[in-house]
Amino acid sequence: MEGVDHLAFERNKAQFDVDAMKIVWAGSSHALEVSDRMSRLVASDPAFRKDNRAMLGRKELFKNTLRKAAYALKRIIELRLSEEEASMLRSFVDEPAFTDLHWGMFVPAIKGQGTEEQLKKWLPLAQKMQIIGCYAQTELGHGSNVQGLETTVTFDPKTDEFVIHSPTLTSSKWWPGGLGKISTHAVVYGRLITDGQDHGVHGFIVQLRSLDDHLPLPGITVGDIGMKFGNGAYNTMDNGVLRFDHVRIPRDQMLMRVSRVTREGKYVQSNVPRQLVYGTMVYVRQTIVSDASTALSRAVCIATRYSAVRRQFGATGGNPESQVIDYKTQQARLFPLLASAYAFRFVGEWLKWLYTDVMTRLQANDFSTLPEAHACTAGLKSLTTSATSDGIEECRKLCGGHGYLCSSGLPELFAVYVPTCTYEGDNIVLLLQVARHLMKTISQLGSGKKPVGTVAYMGRVEQLMESRSDVQKAEDWLNPSAVLGAFEARAARKSVACAKNLSKFSNPEEGFLELSNDLVEAARAHCQLIVVSKFIDKLQQDIPGKGVKQLLEVLCSIYALFHLHKHLGDFLSTGCITSKQGSLANDQLRSLYSQVRPNAIGLVDAFNYTDHYLSSILGRYDGNVYPKLYEEAWKDPLNDSVIPDGFQEYIRPMLKQQLRNARL
Amino acid sequence: MEGVDHLAFERNKAQFDVDAMKIVWAGSSHALEVSDRMSRLVASDPAFRKDNRAMLGRKELFKNTLRKAAYALKRIIELRLSEEEASMLRSFVDEPAFTDLHWGMFVPAIKGQGTEEQLKKWLPLAQKMQIIGCYAQTELGHGSNVQGLETTVTFDPKTDEFVIHSPTLTSSKWWPGGLGKISTHAVVYGRLITDGQDHGVHGFIVQLRSLDDHLPLPGITVGDIGMKFGNGAYNTMDNGVLRFDHVRIPRDQMLMRVSRVTREGKYVQSNVPRQLVYGTMVYVRQTIVSDASTALSRAVCIATRYSAVRRQFGATGGNPESQVIDYKTQQARLFPLLASAYAFRFVGEWLKWLYTDVMTRLQANDFSTLPEAHACTAGLKSLTTSATSDGIEECRKLCGGHGYLCSSGLPELFAVYVPTCTYEGDNIVLLLQVARHLMKTISQLGSGKKPVGTVAYMGRVEQLMESRSDVQKAEDWLNPSAVLGAFEARAARKSVACAKNLSKFSNPEEGFLELSNDLVEAARAHCQLIVVSKFIDKLQQDIPGKGVKQLLEVLCSIYALFHLHKHLGDFLSTGCITSKQGSLANDQLRSLYSQVRPNAIGLVDAFNYTDHYLSSILGRYDGNVYPKLYEEAWKDPLNDSVIPDGFQEYIRPMLKQQLRNARL
Repeated sequence: MEGVDHLAFERNKAQFDVDAMKIVWAGSSHALEVSDRMSRLVASDPAFRKDNRAMLGRKELFKNTLRKAAYALKRIIELRLSEEEASMLRSFVDEPAFTDLHWGMFVPAIKGQGTEEQLKKWLPLAQKMQIIGCYAQTELGHGSNVQGLETTVTFDPKTDEFVIHSPTLTSSKWWPGGLGKISTHAVVYGRLITDGQDHGVHGFIVQLRSLDDHLPLPGITVGDIGMKFGNGAYNTMDNGVLRFDHVRIPRDQMLMRVSRVTREGKYVQSNVPRQLVYGTMVYVRQTIVSDASTALSRAVCIATRYSAVRRQFGATGGNPESQVIDYKTQQARLFPLLASAYAFRFVGEWLKWLYTDVMTRLQANDFSTLPEAHACTAGLKSLTTSATSDGIEECRKLCGGHGYLCSSGLPELFAVYVPTCTYEGDNIVLLLQVARHLMKTISQLGSGKKPVGTVAYMGRVEQLMESRSDVQKAEDWLNPSAVLGAFEARAARKSVACAKNLSKFSNPEEGFLELSNDLVEAARAHCQLIVVSKFIDKLQQDIPGKGVKQLLEVLCSIYALFHLHKHLGDFLSTGCITSKQGSLANDQLRSLYSQVRPNAIGLVDAFNYTDHYLSSILGRYDGNVYPKLYEEAWKDPLNDSVIPDGFQEYIRPMLKQQLRNARL
Repeated sequence: MEGVDHLAFERNKAQFDVDAMKIVWAGSSHALEVSDRMSRLVASDPAFRKDNRAMLGRKELFKNTLRKAAYALKRIIELRLSEEEASMLRSFVDEPAFTDLHWGMFVPAIKGQGTEEQLKKWLPLAQKMQIIGCYAQTELGHGSNVQGLETTVTFDPKTDEFVIHSPTLTSSKWWPGGLGKISTHAVVYGRLITDGQDHGVHGFIVQLRSLDDHLPLPGITVGDIGMKFGNGAYNTMDNGVLRFDHVRIPRDQMLMRVSRVTREGKYVQSNVPRQLVYGTMVYVRQTIVSDASTALSRAVCIATRYSAVRRQFGATGGNPESQVIDYKTQQARLFPLLASAYAFRFVGEWLKWLYTDVMTRLQANDFSTLPEAHACTAGLKSLTTSATSDGIEECRKLCGGHGYLCSSGLPELFAVYVPTCTYEGDNIVLLLQVARHLMKTISQLGSGKKPVGTVAYMGRVEQLMESRSDVQKAEDWLNPSAVLGAFEARAARKSVACAKNLSKFSNPEEGFLELSNDLVEAARAHCQLIVVSKFIDKLQQDIPGKGVKQLLEVLCSIYALFHLHKHLGDFLSTGCITSKQGSLANDQLRSLYSQVRPNAIGLVDAFNYTDHYLSSILGRYDGNVYPKLYEEAWKDPLNDSVIPDGFQEYIRPMLKQQLRNARL
């Protein structure tokens, strides 16, 4: 049966140009070409095998990751890959490793916060990997509240050095990836103290290990923090613990772009705007949103293909059972996730543009859009990562029992993804930041300050408080303006209601804490509006390819109407729509699912994932699921022998009624 | 600091009698005494250590489970434990093992489906564990649809034997726990064929492995199906694959209580009602509901204690940061789960009574309540297990970054729990069964058939279609009748709306498929009503202990109003309540959370879990979290050596720019 495409009959059903959709998904023909080439390069090289990850013990697993990281770099050098190609290749290797932090946090931190001189000194070393760095911010007792970090960095004018110290157990650095076993250096964040004065948290380049023998330098205690959720998953990463006992570094290892300490120990702010730092945050969160669409689409691809292969119930008169993808309950869980994957892709694309726009403005000393951009990326990071975590697990459940096997790929995908909800800003804390921005926007409406960007609709708040949806039949919900009107009205009214309730408190901070749950809901409504509106914006563009745009319109409607149905209470309680209109939306949703059905396999094929990247027997391109599941089972170490280890010592005495005398 | 109770100040806040609550939770003083004694017995015995589970490779892990299972049995014999004590002890060992299937499925299947003679022959062997059995039902291609199983069991009148055969790859038995490596016997389900006629699926006792050398018997292929989700978790279990190549068993190994095959090959139904089999299903699902409350309460206990230890933000004037449990966003996520744990406990208690009631009636040939009992246990299994899976993961997120560490206990708790959503009936399939029962109930209303049990409220459907909630102020929602009225009206109206829409279809089955998502929602509304009403019923009982009943009333209100808020769209769209009333419910909820806050630690202490059972550093009774997290980290195998395996081969050449020539 090798070579047979068991999903060919599904692929023949597609009513659109899958190759054109691949370009839309990738972002451009060029991006598709590069990612296609790099993913095949990785997939075809046995050195990058990853299907055995779940079975490896921690040490073996970690060693294997070191090998792959080194091998990837070797290949990058040998093939003279461009930076774009190299980064693609690393992402298709698809294994968390110290290199992620080196390239993704250490290098950018130096770039963003270092002076020209510091860049000249450190960047070449880092770029050639003559040093390997990580990003040591969070502490055992301090995560979200960065300003609460306890590590101290005290300037000693006598020696022109900083003394880094961990004054308490809770000040131990805890979690930084790459720290535990590999990094030679770190950007360490601690409270800068000069002459007894605390200047708050700043970053410093600190060498952790000898470049000769890799042993920790004097005064440094460092190690791995132990196993994390899942098989394989983040256990390939040496998340670390780090304690300083009065460790000294030269003064010039403080990252001094924004502020510095002079030889005399004076703390001086530079004329570089602090806001530039926030630009980096916008960048990092933008990549997280884009990664969300990748992670969700992988899970959706697996669940969709398997739902077309799997049959259960409904056999009649000698016909096979029904494909589970034909069940409306399956469609109503799966297709909104498929729509979400596309929605997140496009909002991620837009965020990339926003980042460039913000940075251009910042260079020109225009800070006006920064707060809005900051709130909006924070909110989208929260929304997309929460939805993706839940979505991956939902896809696993949609695969029934077999989704619970590691060979389905879904357990690891979930376990490796979920920390995204916590790192780079806890998702609830981020929504509260969005809410703060919304409340501020509303409070400034009276003063004539015109809201910009994604809160621009707040400028029409009076109209939005009054508007009534004019949907009269189910198809009216296909009209983008009907959808946008309802989502804008809901978001505006939720925010205005919060603002009103807040104004009843004499102490606004107290009010904010007391009403925080309502504020989170308002922020969520706002963020969903952004996703919906950016999807609609995307559809205003010219999108070539037979049926491509039409299908994206269907997905956009599904994304919007699914959320309208899910949060019906919001829409009804704020009076944005009537119960009848809500029910019409639900009717329309049903018909939209039917339109997706024949195109479902095509829509996940458009992600262009290799079987290596998916790493899922259930999600195989050829749908040849059962024989491969069966084959895979026998590879488990437990099947190495017919009689398992421990049988003679423990089970035989049980069967032979000799337990009493057995030494266990 | 050893021995200091870091949560003492929280325990002092409790406004109720925690010891009295322990009795309520356990079900009785006797149950508390036994569970307390057994849990301490396990906790104090180093042989039952489980904190190293995440670090063990599959073989080592499995061997360790065999040891524990044998040791547990040895202790049970030595201490002459009663059946109740033994079962408690096994549950506190807290490690999925072949024994679960032996005691939980193999023995009950024989008891339920075997004749008196068969019981006499097989039960003593099983009870002394001279044979070890499992339950081989699901196949690679067949799960939910039991009637679709492909394994054939053909009677051969020449030899008076059955011939068991796996005709296709998809007919391979797949998933049965205990099958892969350990079981000597199995109850195997297959299509009974006599004289060319297919009589559908029946159960047979089949020996799989030799009792001498444990090798598989001729014609049998058997092994483990490989790694499953999570560290430790279900990887301690040998879920197995099994294929038959014309395996012969004597005719008397068909489980013949309900139907049998005669020496001549005639298929004969006995006069024992088939319905008795459904009684077993009610039993199994009742234990699942009770286990849901246990699993959820463990997660809630961990998250609650850690939320009281963890501090973040809000430090003012030298005061420490705020405990995260004081944040309203934390409370609004955590306390409804705490309330759910108690709600599931009580609905589980009631199900236990229901099972006894149903069995008593069945013995007396009264089948009248069976369909209702069957629908209700199916629905509650679905509702409680879905909520528990989501709840455990929510608790993990509530613990922030540290919840991602295996040492938090939450990753394994989640991974080991989630299959419950799929096994013993996929949760969506079960809700559709409930919906079928609801639609049938409604269709019979006209005929004067009075609905009984949990659908009794349907008898008042006309009143419920008209009723309006008379809540006028937030406190009115504390009135059980206000809550019950709203939940009954919502459930009734959702069902009636479905029934109306169904009646528009000429083919009812087609309509059922087309409207299945609405039907699932109606079923869910019905099941939530059951949980709410059984919680309210519980509070009608005499519950001693200072403040105990009052606090349970608070939890009951939280459970109800949280769900009212979550599903506000249902309540509003069906016109059961007004937007204003919905908003009042939300206000009341806020005040209820404040009432739980000082009692939160007491409420989780009342579960009476040992630190061994929780197996979570974050959930430690004494709250001494940080030093223990720090200590635990160093136990990871990666910290065995300062320089990790693989450094010399892979990382040194990288740092020394010698990758090009390195052999990787």
